[in-house]
Amino acid sequence: MTVETHTAQFESISLENGTSLSSVLVAYQTYGELNAAKSNAILILHAFSGDAHAAGISHETGKPGWWDNMIGPGKAFDTEKYFMICSNVLGGCQGTTGPSSINSETGCPYAMSFPVITMGDMVRVQTKLIDFLGIERLLAVAGGSMGGMQALEWAVTYPDRVAAAVPIATTARHTPQQIAFNEVGRQAIMADPDWNDGNYYSSRPPNRGLAIARMVGHITYMSDESMREKFGRRLREKEKFGFDFSVDFEVESYLRYRGSQFVSRFDANSYLYITKAEDYFDLTNGTGSLASAFSKAKARFLVISFSSDWLYPSYQSQEIVRVLRRSNHDVAYCELPSNYGHDAFLVDVAEQSEVVRGFLASTYKERA
Amino acid sequence: MTVETHTAQFESISLENGTSLSSVLVAYQTYGELNAAKSNAILILHAFSGDAHAAGISHETGKPGWWDNMIGPGKAFDTEKYFMICSNVLGGCQGTTGPSSINSETGCPYAMSFPVITMGDMVRVQTKLIDFLGIERLLAVAGGSMGGMQALEWAVTYPDRVAAAVPIATTARHTPQQIAFNEVGRQAIMADPDWNDGNYYSSRPPNRGLAIARMVGHITYMSDESMREKFGRRLREKEKFGFDFSVDFEVESYLRYRGSQFVSRFDANSYLYITKAEDYFDLTNGTGSLASAFSKAKARFLVISFSSDWLYPSYQSQEIVRVLRRSNHDVAYCELPSNYGHDAFLVDVAEQSEVVRGFLASTYKERA
Repeated sequence: MTVETHTAQFESISLENGTSLSSVLVAYQTYGELNAAKSNAILILHAFSGDAHAAGISHETGKPGWWDNMIGPGKAFDTEKYFMICSNVLGGCQGTTGPSSINSETGCPYAMSFPVITMGDMVRVQTKLIDFLGIERLLAVAGGSMGGMQALEWAVTYPDRVAAAVPIATTARHTPQQIAFNEVGRQAIMADPDWNDGNYYSSRPPNRGLAIARMVGHITYMSDESMREKFGRRLREKEKFGFDFSVDFEVESYLRYRGSQFVSRFDANSYLYITKAEDYFDLTNGTGSLASAFSKAKARFLVISFSSDWLYPSYQSQEIVRVLRRSNHDVAYCELPSNYGHDAFLVDVAEQSEVVRGFLASTYKERA
Repeated sequence: MTVETHTAQFESISLENGTSLSSVLVAYQTYGELNAAKSNAILILHAFSGDAHAAGISHETGKPGWWDNMIGPGKAFDTEKYFMICSNVLGGCQGTTGPSSINSETGCPYAMSFPVITMGDMVRVQTKLIDFLGIERLLAVAGGSMGGMQALEWAVTYPDRVAAAVPIATTARHTPQQIAFNEVGRQAIMADPDWNDGNYYSSRPPNRGLAIARMVGHITYMSDESMREKFGRRLREKEKFGFDFSVDFEVESYLRYRGSQFVSRFDANSYLYITKAEDYFDLTNGTGSLASAFSKAKARFLVISFSSDWLYPSYQSQEIVRVLRRSNHDVAYCELPSNYGHDAFLVDVAEQSEVVRGFLASTYKERA
């Protein structure tokens, strides 16, 4: 199926920091049909570097969506049954307003004058989009990694608007290690002279710093095992060790390639704002008590983690599950075996599909 | 005890890449007394960013050595019994010849004209130092991380010159993940315009890139648990989230501090050369067979790993131990419980001390 990106515009969005943002654009795609009762809508929430193009073949680029293996006719998120929505997050750079957008008051890109945003702000913008689409209550919200944080935020902040939440490979708050990896990426961008305090939109962007940041990210997305299977110690286009500083190992050329690819599609300032929103995210709001955070939640939960994911390890999902169980919430949990590390929710989807499929079917039957 | 750094000079060192290096200086320290039989000498091998100052209080800086908790009177490496030696590695920047040294043929720093060196080259230089000190056979070689690689290299390449080897928190060859972390550090340095193809010795050094590299390193040295214990999600000098890009979390200020400290004591080109030597290191010499690598080894082995070390995970030590056991080498192995991650061999030394103490005593009794 060929899909197009649509854009909704909102006059004003109030933000958690007390200010507001005007003329907010939100890029989104939909797949499938909304039923007459408007009871079959599912909002897909993308990870850090994702976008609105979750499924189908893009009319603009000819490329499949980032979760096309999960969303489509007969797939886990079955577009013959459900109406699927995915939007680019606030602060992003793929059609939704972010630091690279033009500030209508100045006629220039926001750059670092863009307000610091939170996961709550991203979700508030999503509620506006759902309003705009005429949907009162979502059948489900679902996403991996940062998308999972948003699924949790939805369930806690808008308990009457979501029947089910599927947080995958995620956490209720970042650990120091998770903050540290993000911080290294931010420092790499800000250390690049081309960053120029964020004012690079009419000059050379900080591509070197952004590529370094992405390389660090890619290491954390893969597992020790999956890297070994994919690369081993294989050498790149050399018969033997060249003893020099050109690319020796396949893993090096892979990282450099992924770094250089990323800069052509992602904005460095968006990297700063979105990673900061991840680090600020704390479902307990600084209290440390997940139980009180979940006290108002009404959704059913399906929590999924992956055995080899060391960026968002299973214990973080299990912490969420324990608290939900203790307070008699409806929660299912699966730790799925996979060697793919954090990337598993994107690439190793056979079991994930079956688990999600069954969960959605029972939710639709019970709650819709 | 106050200690001084000495320097030995060697006319020429032949290198694995077929070239040779002239006028090589080696910085070293010694602790304790060599006995008349010259049978009590132990060579300590430092990790990536270490130096010759392993123990005692430096006459030059007033600071304790990097393994002062392990080396000294009555300690694991008991200087009342043993004669301890530690030297800065070839390619280093703490007194031993490296890329920041003056090339006597040109009168300028080598910079990137320094030959690419290997772990074998580093160890060959150490054999020259041992010759110079009049020692035929070492009682032991010992070190953690990159120092452990050198201990393995000693045992395999100079089987008649070492009675015992103590490789700690190390590996027989880098995995793609270990190469990848090193590669990110190298790319961060080389992406810094101040790196200037390595020619920065008369201008501003690439401190931003080097600091980023070090930040990545520090994350890998600690464990998820130890970071959580040390930092939690504590905020830095702010009552609440400031929603801005200044330092928010203590882990961020820690990493920035460690990054900025590192640049004052370490040379960026040394970072490139030494990490590359780590990545090239492969005890199997590309054959993948550890058994044939160890076939000539005669030393006793004590292999140590730490439960929370995810940079050099225990399975890498266990692989070494399995092969040594299968071929009837004398090998002892301990996986020590610790929350400190890779840093454990430097900071969590109570059990490590007892294990090393006993191993050295029995080696001294049997072999010296």
